[in-house]
Amino acid sequence: MNLYEETISALKAIVGDPACIVEEIDTAPYTTDYRKLYKGKAIAVVFPSSTDQVSQVMSWCFSHNIKVVPQGGNTSLMGGAVPDETGDAIILNLRRMAQILAVDKLNDTMTLQAGVTLSSARAAADEANRLFPLRIGSEGSCQIGGNLATNAGGTAVLRYGNMRDLVLGIEAVLPDGRIYSSLRGLRKDNTGYDLKQLFVGSEGTLGIITAAVLKLMPKPQSASAAFVAIENPAAAIELLGLAKQLSGPTLTTFELVSADAMTLVCEYLGGVKPPLADNPAWMVLIELTSTGPQDALDASLVQVLEAGMEAGLVSDAAIASSLSDLQAFWRLREEISDAQTRTGGSVKCDVSVPLSHIAEFVDKATTKVKSIAPASRMIIYGHMGDGNVHFNPLRAADQDAKSYLTNHYQAISDAVDSIAHSFQGSISAEHGIGVSKRDDLLKYKSSVELDLMWQIKNSLDPKGLLNPKKVLPSIA
Amino acid sequence: MNLYEETISALKAIVGDPACIVEEIDTAPYTTDYRKLYKGKAIAVVFPSSTDQVSQVMSWCFSHNIKVVPQGGNTSLMGGAVPDETGDAIILNLRRMAQILAVDKLNDTMTLQAGVTLSSARAAADEANRLFPLRIGSEGSCQIGGNLATNAGGTAVLRYGNMRDLVLGIEAVLPDGRIYSSLRGLRKDNTGYDLKQLFVGSEGTLGIITAAVLKLMPKPQSASAAFVAIENPAAAIELLGLAKQLSGPTLTTFELVSADAMTLVCEYLGGVKPPLADNPAWMVLIELTSTGPQDALDASLVQVLEAGMEAGLVSDAAIASSLSDLQAFWRLREEISDAQTRTGGSVKCDVSVPLSHIAEFVDKATTKVKSIAPASRMIIYGHMGDGNVHFNPLRAADQDAKSYLTNHYQAISDAVDSIAHSFQGSISAEHGIGVSKRDDLLKYKSSVELDLMWQIKNSLDPKGLLNPKKVLPSIA
Repeated sequence: MNLYEETISALKAIVGDPACIVEEIDTAPYTTDYRKLYKGKAIAVVFPSSTDQVSQVMSWCFSHNIKVVPQGGNTSLMGGAVPDETGDAIILNLRRMAQILAVDKLNDTMTLQAGVTLSSARAAADEANRLFPLRIGSEGSCQIGGNLATNAGGTAVLRYGNMRDLVLGIEAVLPDGRIYSSLRGLRKDNTGYDLKQLFVGSEGTLGIITAAVLKLMPKPQSASAAFVAIENPAAAIELLGLAKQLSGPTLTTFELVSADAMTLVCEYLGGVKPPLADNPAWMVLIELTSTGPQDALDASLVQVLEAGMEAGLVSDAAIASSLSDLQAFWRLREEISDAQTRTGGSVKCDVSVPLSHIAEFVDKATTKVKSIAPASRMIIYGHMGDGNVHFNPLRAADQDAKSYLTNHYQAISDAVDSIAHSFQGSISAEHGIGVSKRDDLLKYKSSVELDLMWQIKNSLDPKGLLNPKKVLPSIA
Repeated sequence: MNLYEETISALKAIVGDPACIVEEIDTAPYTTDYRKLYKGKAIAVVFPSSTDQVSQVMSWCFSHNIKVVPQGGNTSLMGGAVPDETGDAIILNLRRMAQILAVDKLNDTMTLQAGVTLSSARAAADEANRLFPLRIGSEGSCQIGGNLATNAGGTAVLRYGNMRDLVLGIEAVLPDGRIYSSLRGLRKDNTGYDLKQLFVGSEGTLGIITAAVLKLMPKPQSASAAFVAIENPAAAIELLGLAKQLSGPTLTTFELVSADAMTLVCEYLGGVKPPLADNPAWMVLIELTSTGPQDALDASLVQVLEAGMEAGLVSDAAIASSLSDLQAFWRLREEISDAQTRTGGSVKCDVSVPLSHIAEFVDKATTKVKSIAPASRMIIYGHMGDGNVHFNPLRAADQDAKSYLTNHYQAISDAVDSIAHSFQGSISAEHGIGVSKRDDLLKYKSSVELDLMWQIKNSLDPKGLLNPKKVLPSIA
């Protein structure tokens, strides 16, 4: 037996024969990324069913220098969860570790295995009359372990924070198979370095998250939402200031949507009309949620809108007057991503800048894109309240998707990132680095930052076996 | 010149003669800790005035193997900010780096140097019609750098989180003098490891924080508070659940106070009467704050209290009916710490446990303390809403402070920590480790946790020069 055959037989002994697949026809769904941009190879895909099995797999791989790619729901947009084409790694998929281990209502926490999907986690919270607030498009497939490993964001960050803010404890298996655990559900614990922070957002390059303790929130009893017409992004930021002051912490969502994005999603959904007359150039979707009564919340939303009109920021608004309105509003927002995918030919930039510069950023980046590819549709939308926009220029309806991307992808992507950076922004606000943006870090991180990242990587994964060639660019 | 003389002259050349003090009479305030439990020695105390000077000092010390103890307001309760008696370290005090660099109202952020005191930071936020929510007793002396390095907590964590939750960016000088910076004010940035997390809560052992970008919150326009009589800590936790549900995110403070703590602080303040008739065995101080009108908030507090009464949890309540009432309530809460210090002879335990176990913890720890030192006054108070209590048994009025501590300190402290640990709790919820609890980590941390801490330490500070002998216990 060669090393790979030996590895397969060792893995089968650990996880059981059916939980270790090797044939290319079986492994294909796991070696191909969500956006079908990366197609790799793997020695095997293993599906451990316990932390102990993960630990055994990692021990074996460590002592035999086998690389390991951790994988949750395989919904990475950055190629972060699939191996490359060399075929020298196994995939360790967490799917079978999908148990909710405990819901502690007094402590407002939930302990679960890493393979629980986000939607299952949200459902378990709901059943306990609580809210787990993370809300992202892939919730039916993505898993809590991946959400943590990528520090997922989404549409409720404004109120509840990113995944890093929602976790109290982590269990992770280290590259050598040892198990780190802080599954204790404490809101305060200043006993040395907060080691769990290492694993959050490290995209599986430092350890494999196997379980977590998450915070639960009081379950909102009411929600009020409106699509609001605004003149431009600068007006959106001013309106955001009013909403923060007037609605306080009930302000949950503040999402920007450009006219082109609205037109696209309405076409995609078929026969759906834009929520505002004449489909204005810019809209925001505002949502307030609260544990209090609906009428008070509605009044608060109206107060924000009236203040916005008085200040000359708001020209028109459509208020959701029923649950089905609310759902329809959210559908318009949430389907923008799929609408682009289906259309094809879009340059996806996920950037953030300080709120004080986001209007300038949008102006400058739009001008630049129009100079590169004048006919582009400007699909600009996302989490304005967090300073994060998905800035995704799209081919014109009569342009060919492939040639648009061939001719313009790199130029547009580089220009947008560079403009975001010039405003002290981030070239990946919530999607992470994976392989897609790894080498861009050479341009946008200081040498001290790159050194520190490598120091941490080398210290925790001295053999470089865990999720190789992800996140960290090669430095001299 | 020997190495120390050479060091002093090099430091004077960097920071200027008057900003480097060496005589013991001058250095004494800096070599002695806040509680006067630790008295060390230093080669010199330097007061750099810029990040560049800090960098130069660190470079010099690194290349000459000189140890460095970073120091902010020197308010550590754990001996974390003073050198030991060997006299082989310099103290690097941040006091002169006290500039507010920027307040960005649109971004709701504030950029400041590490030596700004917490009260100055709060005042700067207030001037911009914003709130910087960290609230701890030492705010007039403690500095933002120290608050970050110790991940400070306090009385508003329930609503706003710990210091880790309030920071968006950090500038820190590494042991070798290089400067790390993420002073960009972004709410979302998933471009590689979140390196600032390393420095938060590391108590100056990995780098010297020189500046930070902090989050600002909308400034509350109203506050409602009450002291509430409850039968026991279990009832407090049930009441907390009601308050979370009914008051939502306006719930800002939920502090437990035992009868002994109330009696002590009233005596200390002189002629002050307890807020509730017959000074009940247990009280909680509840505060709601909001950007909305006072009357709505008052109504919300009354609703919580009525629900508490209906559920049999609340037997009596005193509502603050004026600003001076509110201040008087807070004074009772905040002076408990000084009342103990003045009285002398108290065993300070700062523990946290999951909220679902805190009532059991208090019962069990109380029984144990009474078996060790039956006459002890049970000064139990603090941040119940975070699962964090200051559990501080105090000598009886007629006992001698010194002999009480000699006879009982170690036994009580060990017992309380061990009981907290048995409930998955923390032996230092917010005060940190410093030197006081360093060796206790050997008992309460797993070998994996200790290894990881040392791996990080050795990676970032390979010569072990930064705040030596703090936080990390020696392992074999």
